[in-house]
Amino acid sequence: MAVFALTVAYDGSRFSGFARQPGAETVQGCIEDALMTALGEKVVTTGAGRTDAGVHALAQVVSFEWDAELDSHKLQRSLNALTSEGIVVTGVRLMPVGFSARPSAMAREYRYRLVPGPVPPLFLARYAWWVRSGLDLRAMRQAAQSLLGEHDFTSFCVAASAEGKPTCRRLEVVDITPETVLGEHSVVIRIVGNAFLHSMVRVIVGSLVETATGRRAPEWLSEALAARDRSAAGPTAPPHGLTLWQVTYPDECWL
Amino acid sequence: MAVFALTVAYDGSRFSGFARQPGAETVQGCIEDALMTALGEKVVTTGAGRTDAGVHALAQVVSFEWDAELDSHKLQRSLNALTSEGIVVTGVRLMPVGFSARPSAMAREYRYRLVPGPVPPLFLARYAWWVRSGLDLRAMRQAAQSLLGEHDFTSFCVAASAEGKPTCRRLEVVDITPETVLGEHSVVIRIVGNAFLHSMVRVIVGSLVETATGRRAPEWLSEALAARDRSAAGPTAPPHGLTLWQVTYPDECWL
Repeated sequence: MAVFALTVAYDGSRFSGFARQPGAETVQGCIEDALMTALGEKVVTTGAGRTDAGVHALAQVVSFEWDAELDSHKLQRSLNALTSEGIVVTGVRLMPVGFSARPSAMAREYRYRLVPGPVPPLFLARYAWWVRSGLDLRAMRQAAQSLLGEHDFTSFCVAASAEGKPTCRRLEVVDITPETVLGEHSVVIRIVGNAFLHSMVRVIVGSLVETATGRRAPEWLSEALAARDRSAAGPTAPPHGLTLWQVTYPDECWL
Repeated sequence: MAVFALTVAYDGSRFSGFARQPGAETVQGCIEDALMTALGEKVVTTGAGRTDAGVHALAQVVSFEWDAELDSHKLQRSLNALTSEGIVVTGVRLMPVGFSARPSAMAREYRYRLVPGPVPPLFLARYAWWVRSGLDLRAMRQAAQSLLGEHDFTSFCVAASAEGKPTCRRLEVVDITPETVLGEHSVVIRIVGNAFLHSMVRVIVGSLVETATGRRAPEWLSEALAARDRSAAGPTAPPHGLTLWQVTYPDECWL
């Protein structure tokens, strides 16, 4: 028995989310269909992060078990020929036995892109949230400080299904940087943590934007966190600004 | 009588080129329709560059005459509400009498984006030409040297309609730079010249790629230029990698 990991980029606007669902076009469904065609047998995969409908990925990691030899380059070429437009397999690697993309992950990095100001983005329209006002990056950075470290992030979790499950997560990085991409000005919020609750990044972004537009003071964010109540935090930012950027594994996961 | 200049960004994949044509969805047609709705009268516009179908613009300049007062900000908002998806008016300015976007332009800057290697681009798929092999940037830069300065660019002109018209153009910059955009690796060819023949940038790029993939030696490009014959140069690169980036006017054009 061997374990393989695919690194997968996708344009979330074309899919009803990552996780396989009957009757819906999902990233995982597409990849499993392509694997079945390429390998001739049904394959069950595990993804590192279950991104919502509309959320993109630059390097989602998808693992599966397979009990025969595989030519990684050939499989990558086949999958890229078989998967629909909107999915690109950027790598295929043999992993140690016991590896699984979700439980083995140590950290996830998400990036959220905003375009501020009165003029809508063009080339970035599919990949950024257009916030029609200016953004006070200093206020946003000050507010972001209160999120670092280990906290109960209940206020930033959308799913009711999380009831009774642990809601503590540890954030290592929340940084905010202006970036010009394809000639258009944007602001990137980069968030790295051990794991994330459902929609957590999008509620964090929606709340940070409340402080960046002056609707809330930077101190409000730590109060929202302490409240452990979804209604205390800001709105959920739209999915199309968000990209699962990178997943980190311990060194021993790389053969 | 006053003259106004719009700065316009557009996604070329949604249009049959810039120039107005009966029965086709063009950028100029869209803008003129929006101006007619906003101003209540038919308006004839002039664009700085007649980009082909599929070619994008970050800052196309479109001028028109108007014999009444205009609130620039209000007009910009109206146009952005009226034009179809794929066009964004990024600025509206009052210009000196006599200004016209095409004849007044001193220089145009185009950028062409390539994605080299076996893995196709995802986020850049609409904005870059995927060249499946590696690219030798040194060979490409060496070849590009022969294009600088004033030359007869007949070998790099696609249109037969250019017969009898002047074919000399002056290139000031041809530089080639790797750039990572939205997490994807690309190579940007930046070309600045006083003016361009039909499809000239795309034939230059197609020819530079011949040298970058080793199919031609760098010296071949100066021979192709000297031949003054379209068949001596390389293929025409696809339109979707190309963006009209910037148009430069003399200082006295800015009020």
